[in-house]
Amino acid sequence: MNKIILASASPRRREILEKAGVNFTVIPASGEEKISTSHPEQAVQQLSSGKARSVARSLDDSIHDVLVIGADTVVSYAGRILGKPRDEEDAVNTLESLQGNTHQVYTGVTVMERKDGAFREHTFYEVTDVTFYPVSHEEILEYVKTKEPVDKAGSYAIQGLFGIYVKEIRGDYNNVVGLPVSRLFYEMKKLGIKLRG
Amino acid sequence: MNKIILASASPRRREILEKAGVNFTVIPASGEEKISTSHPEQAVQQLSSGKARSVARSLDDSIHDVLVIGADTVVSYAGRILGKPRDEEDAVNTLESLQGNTHQVYTGVTVMERKDGAFREHTFYEVTDVTFYPVSHEEILEYVKTKEPVDKAGSYAIQGLFGIYVKEIRGDYNNVVGLPVSRLFYEMKKLGIKLRG
Repeated sequence: MNKIILASASPRRREILEKAGVNFTVIPASGEEKISTSHPEQAVQQLSSGKARSVARSLDDSIHDVLVIGADTVVSYAGRILGKPRDEEDAVNTLESLQGNTHQVYTGVTVMERKDGAFREHTFYEVTDVTFYPVSHEEILEYVKTKEPVDKAGSYAIQGLFGIYVKEIRGDYNNVVGLPVSRLFYEMKKLGIKLRG
Repeated sequence: MNKIILASASPRRREILEKAGVNFTVIPASGEEKISTSHPEQAVQQLSSGKARSVARSLDDSIHDVLVIGADTVVSYAGRILGKPRDEEDAVNTLESLQGNTHQVYTGVTVMERKDGAFREHTFYEVTDVTFYPVSHEEILEYVKTKEPVDKAGSYAIQGLFGIYVKEIRGDYNNVVGLPVSRLFYEMKKLGIKLRG
């Protein structure tokens, strides 16, 4: 059985992995990663890879049989990547553009697998379509006042108070929350790697 | 502001309503409801209506401006309604049929609204497609041993340990858990009814 490390400070990713029955340790990646692309599927994979590599490099050589999992999530609408909001006005504008429409949530996942001293990298991404009901300006202002958008890509949390405006999704729900855990299990299974007992 | 009553003992429905910011009281409907149809969309609406009516009837006349919310969820596969499993073998067989395939989850919702002494009923249903990755016989046996399937329509919980096998959904995630809370807010908004603050 491998030692599993989640290279993310996100409490939401932690909760998803815990609920899936995985035993792991958290070592958040430090430093801001830079992206050199405007394509969301490439961006999230660059970012997840950067996080997982940075934590993998920092590990003591004595730790064998380890998996380091990095992930990064962005929201994309009409060809533009929407990150975390700069301020309340930015959050309001973002939500005004998303309401009544369908946007995409991309999460990149990288697993750095150390075996016999060397690391192997496995990276993939998952995309989910999210469609909102129409949401009024007053409802958006009310939501932004709760401060929930502050640290959320796309300025909302599907598992939070804005979840009541989500009409439907197409794809993996956990991918929207921040970690496509089913796909992660599926990819690891193909490689013969077990994530739980 | 109306007093809101959830006519369901399900901890999952309670959690969904709480997370949506609704203040409510729980009064579970008593007695088994009977259905007279094999159509899932009709069955869940008969059952949600039965639950909400039963609790509404039991309320003291002095309680005005009240909403009673009833809900019922079934899983449907290949034209058959799958309820809660009879025993472990039934759970295994159900999950064997669902793995690697797409099935439907139906939830019926009834809101009984008391205003000026009289009740008005609002009933609707929501359907979500759920697609599983292939799941091996061993993985199914392992899951059934956790006892999680016991009280679950279709023998699994999407928010539980079988969630890692869900490849994708089409529709509302909370509908699969047991209460399509976005649709509930949307329907109530159309009627001018507020569910929070």
